[in-house]
Amino acid sequence: MSHVGSQIGRSIPRLEAIAKVTGRAEYVHNMLLPGMLHGKILRSTVARGRIKRIDVEKAKAGNGVHAVITSQDILSLIPHPYHGPAFHDQPILALDEVRHYGEPVAVVLAADPHVALRALAAIEVEYEELPAVYDEVEAVTSPVAVHAELKPAATFADLKHLVGLKNTNVALEYRLRRGNVDRAFAAADHVFEHTFRTQQAMHAALEPHVTVAEPGDGSLTLHTCSQNPSFIRTEIARLLGWPENQVRVRTPFLGGGFGGKLYIKLEAIAAAAALLVHRPVKIALSMGEVFYTITKHATTVRIKSAVTKDGRITARECEAWWNGGAYADIGPRVTQKAGYTAAGPYDIENVRIDSYQIYTNRPPAGALRGFGVPQLAWAYESHTDFIAKDLGIDPLEFRWKNLLREGRPQATGATMRDAPMEKVLDRIAARLNWGAPLDRGDGRMRRGRGLAIGLKAGTSPTTSVAMVNVNASGSATLYVGTADMGQGSDTALGQIVAEALDLPMEDVKVIHTDTDMTPYDMGTCSARSTFHMGNAIRLAADDVRKKLKALEAELGLPQGSNYSVKDLLQKRFGMQAGNIIGVGSFIPPHIWPDPETGLSEEITPFWAIGGTGAEVEVDTQTGHVRVTRLINVADGGRVVNPEIAITQISGAAIMQLGFTMYENMIFKNGRVRNASLTHYEIPSYQDIPALENELLSAEDKRGPFGAKGLGESGTFGVSPAIGNAIFDAVGIRLTELPITAEAVLRALRSAQPLENRP
Amino acid sequence: MSHVGSQIGRSIPRLEAIAKVTGRAEYVHNMLLPGMLHGKILRSTVARGRIKRIDVEKAKAGNGVHAVITSQDILSLIPHPYHGPAFHDQPILALDEVRHYGEPVAVVLAADPHVALRALAAIEVEYEELPAVYDEVEAVTSPVAVHAELKPAATFADLKHLVGLKNTNVALEYRLRRGNVDRAFAAADHVFEHTFRTQQAMHAALEPHVTVAEPGDGSLTLHTCSQNPSFIRTEIARLLGWPENQVRVRTPFLGGGFGGKLYIKLEAIAAAAALLVHRPVKIALSMGEVFYTITKHATTVRIKSAVTKDGRITARECEAWWNGGAYADIGPRVTQKAGYTAAGPYDIENVRIDSYQIYTNRPPAGALRGFGVPQLAWAYESHTDFIAKDLGIDPLEFRWKNLLREGRPQATGATMRDAPMEKVLDRIAARLNWGAPLDRGDGRMRRGRGLAIGLKAGTSPTTSVAMVNVNASGSATLYVGTADMGQGSDTALGQIVAEALDLPMEDVKVIHTDTDMTPYDMGTCSARSTFHMGNAIRLAADDVRKKLKALEAELGLPQGSNYSVKDLLQKRFGMQAGNIIGVGSFIPPHIWPDPETGLSEEITPFWAIGGTGAEVEVDTQTGHVRVTRLINVADGGRVVNPEIAITQISGAAIMQLGFTMYENMIFKNGRVRNASLTHYEIPSYQDIPALENELLSAEDKRGPFGAKGLGESGTFGVSPAIGNAIFDAVGIRLTELPITAEAVLRALRSAQPLENRP
Repeated sequence: MSHVGSQIGRSIPRLEAIAKVTGRAEYVHNMLLPGMLHGKILRSTVARGRIKRIDVEKAKAGNGVHAVITSQDILSLIPHPYHGPAFHDQPILALDEVRHYGEPVAVVLAADPHVALRALAAIEVEYEELPAVYDEVEAVTSPVAVHAELKPAATFADLKHLVGLKNTNVALEYRLRRGNVDRAFAAADHVFEHTFRTQQAMHAALEPHVTVAEPGDGSLTLHTCSQNPSFIRTEIARLLGWPENQVRVRTPFLGGGFGGKLYIKLEAIAAAAALLVHRPVKIALSMGEVFYTITKHATTVRIKSAVTKDGRITARECEAWWNGGAYADIGPRVTQKAGYTAAGPYDIENVRIDSYQIYTNRPPAGALRGFGVPQLAWAYESHTDFIAKDLGIDPLEFRWKNLLREGRPQATGATMRDAPMEKVLDRIAARLNWGAPLDRGDGRMRRGRGLAIGLKAGTSPTTSVAMVNVNASGSATLYVGTADMGQGSDTALGQIVAEALDLPMEDVKVIHTDTDMTPYDMGTCSARSTFHMGNAIRLAADDVRKKLKALEAELGLPQGSNYSVKDLLQKRFGMQAGNIIGVGSFIPPHIWPDPETGLSEEITPFWAIGGTGAEVEVDTQTGHVRVTRLINVADGGRVVNPEIAITQISGAAIMQLGFTMYENMIFKNGRVRNASLTHYEIPSYQDIPALENELLSAEDKRGPFGAKGLGESGTFGVSPAIGNAIFDAVGIRLTELPITAEAVLRALRSAQPLENRP
Repeated sequence: MSHVGSQIGRSIPRLEAIAKVTGRAEYVHNMLLPGMLHGKILRSTVARGRIKRIDVEKAKAGNGVHAVITSQDILSLIPHPYHGPAFHDQPILALDEVRHYGEPVAVVLAADPHVALRALAAIEVEYEELPAVYDEVEAVTSPVAVHAELKPAATFADLKHLVGLKNTNVALEYRLRRGNVDRAFAAADHVFEHTFRTQQAMHAALEPHVTVAEPGDGSLTLHTCSQNPSFIRTEIARLLGWPENQVRVRTPFLGGGFGGKLYIKLEAIAAAAALLVHRPVKIALSMGEVFYTITKHATTVRIKSAVTKDGRITARECEAWWNGGAYADIGPRVTQKAGYTAAGPYDIENVRIDSYQIYTNRPPAGALRGFGVPQLAWAYESHTDFIAKDLGIDPLEFRWKNLLREGRPQATGATMRDAPMEKVLDRIAARLNWGAPLDRGDGRMRRGRGLAIGLKAGTSPTTSVAMVNVNASGSATLYVGTADMGQGSDTALGQIVAEALDLPMEDVKVIHTDTDMTPYDMGTCSARSTFHMGNAIRLAADDVRKKLKALEAELGLPQGSNYSVKDLLQKRFGMQAGNIIGVGSFIPPHIWPDPETGLSEEITPFWAIGGTGAEVEVDTQTGHVRVTRLINVADGGRVVNPEIAITQISGAAIMQLGFTMYENMIFKNGRVRNASLTHYEIPSYQDIPALENELLSAEDKRGPFGAKGLGESGTFGVSPAIGNAIFDAVGIRLTELPITAEAVLRALRSAQPLENRP
């Protein structure tokens, strides 16, 4: 148990590794409570309709059925049962209307989950089916109104002026206006315009959503697989009209989150059911149900650039339609925050961005690793290669010419600080051996390479509070609301405590995500934990040191006498007693964007930067694409735990590879035809190419010990790098994800013969 | 949910009331963990002996037996397996020697507790029986050495100079020397000397001891019915050589404690077993086993007074022998702390006290409600009436003459402050209608009345740390290591938070006793929680207010602008986010007694004062005594929750009534012949007299909002008040507890006929 100096940059094994591999780590799915009932959800069988009748009597009479709950029951407990982080638009159970196929309509409770499941069939629901709208662009002009009125939440006050400007299907219309775009276009040597689309997809966390609600006396405990327990507490307390402290939200380990476990998912249904029947209630989704719970936005992105003869981009116009499905979830923030960087990683003087959060009758979309950036990067980095090719400029050279460099203002006006874009691009190019010739193949199999880079502004301003309790033996316990959803935050944050207090790791214990134990944290999302919670921990450690100094003074000891905590507390309390408790609250500097222009000089705590290089082999007879190399380079500042960080980059890239090549929710009349992992294909081991993942040696001066977040940075470049590599290999311009063999083959057939390509 | 001003003095219902009456409140006995084994303890069948052989092979081979653990196994994990709060004298399992009947020798583990229990019979242990010593006075000169050497713990440094002065059976010899006792006795008009004895008894908490040990990866969680989890954590970490934070000690509700659940009881055995077999282990005692686990000291007290003609006590000599049994537990502190007030509640210039902690071959004795004061009060307040009667002075008048009054120094030299002795005595006398004649009966049934008063110095110096977390909705969570063992501390401490932060009770949540959640507390003992933790809470609330002021300043708001916490945090963090966390550490002023004289001007955080008046009816034919009235008056300062306080006084008096009239551990060769609640009689409903319990209207200026502890004060006067009432009724001078019908009858037969009494 010796102390080894700097704890930062050490790849120590995850604190929970043994518990996980031995099956002892706690997951909510394993939880059983005395008297617990299982809830199963009856879901809408139409995409849009009025509920004319619900008859639950037959189901209630079923053997072993404890109760059947509908929205009428919930109204007796919660008069305004609508929730949501941006809009209070989502009912706990559907009231008069259903807005998407699979929307929860009723819940059956039984001690045996199989009994509850079977009883669903006995509930009779009669719908008056209504016309629905599914496409994000069509919805803007559709006569179908998914919601009759818009109800932005109080926390959404900063964007209220952008709500429902066109009609109620356009929940939010984020605008950025920089320079004079029209004049620049008028003066342009070349104008390029392309429209890109991405598909609706889902998180596919191996742990489907699960919540156990345990009622107390005027109190409630939720054991739930949430990425933001503090939000769940506030929102459930708001729904119930209770003080916050009567709601306890516990999150043990998560089997993946990726943004799908943010905000209310099952928590409100389980809470209401448990309070109505005065019994613990567990609701665990099947994987199939997850497809109807939360997804990744399908998008349409139109992008148009003005370019000079010598390849300088002088203006860019970008219009993005985000298909948010039937309920807004956090989509409006995706629309806004991703909107900041929709013009891409280039230094462009004149920029116009319009980003629309759209309601449709699809399952809701929310946050998914990258928070919209991967969809935009697919557009802007494909667009980049299309322009370069048309101008006959090497795509890397074109990027070098236009790259947004350190110290320059980004489209929003915020300065690029500690944003090593050149380094990332340089490392990808070097690994691809960009200048050197590539064996491009001939005949049936053709090879190509491509690269892409992206940037992301983090969600801001958000708060993290950390508490460090140093006990009388000198060992420390860290309390953080950061959910460890598999990303290794417990370990990384533990290392930051150890570093900040100069302790060996063995003397640090991490307590995470139980609102009765851990202080406020906005949530585990937006790759924010290392940066925000890390900074909060540094402040908490400063507080500990300040208190130790005060204790020295109180004891009349000379300053800096270097007594250990143990000695000081022994002197103060006469025995091994007492604690030194330090608290740190962190919120980064932030300036709200100007309501008219969307500009602000301070929009992000740090810049997330990542890029990808790809080499592909295209079977021109089948359209099948094999990614042969995938090089992912990301900037994590001074990385706390390199091995864990590498697994994050790697995981992000593989996830985005799935969205690029395979994953696609296929709809028929609003119903997902492939709502299972049998038919919705995520990358298997065989699909994963030779991966190279690299962390830059960098530093973010605002981050804890120089660190920044990187959990999403591996996603940015994957889709366009692969698309650009295919373009390079066979000259086809793909604009839609996923890149299926059919799509490639179709494009190959309609393109000019390969032999004639330039 | 309206706010009603002062929260102090309100008898709000207990926070846990509904959970308890509906069976939902958590107790360790109800706990089951996956893979959990049950441990059953094989116990010594001799009072003192050498273990010649233990053969566990047959037991191990038993169907369903998982493991059998002996001290040899424990040594592989813990090389020095001795624990104890004062002396490190108690092995986790007996090593070479057993020192009392019922001492743990081996543990059988099995998934089925009945299997484990049956397998005990298959373990063969061969003892070489050795001569034993049982009596606390005999032990001082006995050739039997219960321990060959004495091993005081580091925490016992202040009394090291008093250890083992006579021989190793006298663990500690506390001395107090005030004035010139010998001169005063030489000059005395009258000298009175009596010797009193009390029996060994036990706590009889309705929940016997239980611990579940749950091993982690280099960590351990103990779910245990402990009154001082912080101590358990430190001591288990010390035994294992681990940092403290790797040991988590959780205590849900206790089914009574009364001092019997302090310090290591089952925790070390369960911890060692769980770590040895890598499985959760539960050990739950039967009530019979509790008799061999921890008890109340049997005592012999010799008390001698010099008195002037007119009834002034000028000197007192007091010698007390505390029968601590085979292991010291906290007995040395009982010997010392009770020793402070052994001379009683009188203003005596010359005092000599010798208080001996004695090792014998009986089951260990430790803390029990009153921490030695009830045994001493039995002596000094019986002695008081004997003197008064002999001098022909009314016992109340004699007390008035000698009473230790406000502002006067007590025997130790510490000043009586906020110690309303006169008020207590006055209220008892008033309720007994002392001046008025009593119907004394005639013939067979005789009636009498008596009163008695006592005082106690609290254990000092001890530390409590409280943490108050105010969330962004303005509601607060209190974190305290105070075990609510049925006394209602959660409620009272919650009221103190509400009062200190001006919150309605609905906005306060109390989290208790989980060392991973709650900061350090010395323990729930010595009626210290309301005073110590209450003061820590006030300091924590001050810290909250200081931080709110700092936040106002940071936000540029005018001082005292009266923004709510909610508003301030909203302004600071832009949404309902963040926390204000206040921490308070309290330790009362204290001066260690002079090593030679035992004197100190500051020995107690507050003076606990209580007294009792009794009326009895004695059946002179059978010796049966019926207590017809029991009036208990106690000082709780400004009482936080009067109804809860009344139940404490009432409970304390009934408990002491049991020790006075019924309870007695009967030994044969060190074996307890009545080790069950069938044969060891605690008061039943029918035995409880008409009770009158009264709280003074008082204030302790050092206490939180004027409050002080009173959980023990109801015990002080009960035994002597009843003894004095019997003396008053039938003129017999009882000196031993319990006051059985046989003892009364024997005394009546050897006394002069009733008709001749003065």
